Amino acid sequence: MDLIKDIALAQRLADAAGEAICEYWRGRIGLETKADDSPVTLADRAAEEAMRRILSAELPHDGIHGEEFGKERPDATRQWVLDPIDGTTSFVAGRPIFGTLIALLEDGFPVLGVIDQPILKERWVGAAGQQTTFNGVPAECRPCRELTDALLATTSPALFDDHAAGHFMALAAKTAHRRMVWGGDCYNYALLASGHIDIVCEAGLKLHDFAALAPIVEGAGGTMCDWNGDPLHAGSTGEVIALGDPARLEDVLEALACGH
Amino acid sequence: MDLIKDIALAQRLADAAGEAICEYWRGRIGLETKADDSPVTLADRAAEEAMRRILSAELPHDGIHGEEFGKERPDATRQWVLDPIDGTTSFVAGRPIFGTLIALLEDGFPVLGVIDQPILKERWVGAAGQQTTFNGVPAECRPCRELTDALLATTSPALFDDHAAGHFMALAAKTAHRRMVWGGDCYNYALLASGHIDIVCEAGLKLHDFAALAPIVEGAGGTMCDWNGDPLHAGSTGEVIALGDPARLEDVLEALACGH
Repeated sequence: MDLIKDIALAQRLADAAGEAICEYWRGRIGLETKADDSPVTLADRAAEEAMRRILSAELPHDGIHGEEFGKERPDATRQWVLDPIDGTTSFVAGRPIFGTLIALLEDGFPVLGVIDQPILKERWVGAAGQQTTFNGVPAECRPCRELTDALLATTSPALFDDHAAGHFMALAAKTAHRRMVWGGDCYNYALLASGHIDIVCEAGLKLHDFAALAPIVEGAGGTMCDWNGDPLHAGSTGEVIALGDPARLEDVLEALACGH
Repeated sequence: MDLIKDIALAQRLADAAGEAICEYWRGRIGLETKADDSPVTLADRAAEEAMRRILSAELPHDGIHGEEFGKERPDATRQWVLDPIDGTTSFVAGRPIFGTLIALLEDGFPVLGVIDQPILKERWVGAAGQQTTFNGVPAECRPCRELTDALLATTSPALFDDHAAGHFMALAAKTAHRRMVWGGDCYNYALLASGHIDIVCEAGLKLHDFAALAPIVEGAGGTMCDWNGDPLHAGSTGEVIALGDPARLEDVLEALACGH
């Protein structure tokens, strides 16, 4: 019951963030801004402030952990983790494949997540024990019978240091790598939850980058974990795998471990 | 006068291709298709066939050079170069940043180009001596005073062999590389023509990948050439640069040449 209220609130947070972001899209008001603030910085801040206002007014005992303005009440059991614009390079470049990320953590584990794409008006919502939805309609990962058929996505080679790159390349070599997808940030995980991508593998992510993704992927029938196969939580290292078909998890972990 | 007729025809080709492609978007009819044809293959073929039907009926003396069905009348002075879906991995993954490319070449040089994104209903049109348009409104590249401020985009590391990668990395190191954009195919060139990206640098492109882009970039005030600074034509090697601010061309060519 509480979760239903939390989902409704998370949707209002996404509405507020999206409204703030759309004003800055493709330079709409970029030229009138202060010289030292980029449009993405202004959009990021305006969106996070809009979300914080709602949270502070309605859930004054919950913690907030936002990308732009840091932590409030870090000892609270319930923590809202906010990334107003995940995929800032896509936002800056005018590509509508960034997203606002909203997560609720209980005791450090994500139980609710929203990925919102405000330009395309696309929203994925996932919560513990519930079916993930895409714009209100059930979303489902697709099966993947063989790793060699898997469509793999990742945002940038720059995410990987030399060590992580070796492991990533070992996995990529076992997938349908000629069809590999670059760029995309949170939007790749959303498309995995809708059955269009099979694997997303990344490193160097922060809590605000991955917390919202796990409930969405898992509520769509997929699995999300770190590179050792362990569940993601507030203390995870940021080496993450999302997998549409959990039956391929052993194959993926084995392929990753072969890298050096 | 003829160019105006050609532009009108190119718009009708884009309409026809877009209609065919939208039917296959995000698996709409993917499951009912033959086992050995992927949805992207079917969408590619349907879109190119739709464009060829119009061209053959209305301009029976012009040549056609399409990605899927090859060449007709290869000796004609006027050649229509068609890429029904540029960015097939984005199409397959459900990311609306692929495009239909339509170019008209005269004596081997592109004089007209269309980039059409049928899902977002976004269309860029460029033609020799005319201002490029985005959905009918003038589009313009932005100035870039310093290479270190330049937002650079490229589709995939896999485009570059070891030799080309060295040159590319030398250029990337001189730009705002922490903000570099990966993925995107033709859509990056379109965003450059609208003033959101400063440089696109790629290798391994085919004529149908780059022919439509040059008139769009140049009609928006930018410049497009090969890695030696020479104009693109039917015989170019496929190492291409698009630059929003032609004043940075010397800097870009010099940075590229420093790679090894």
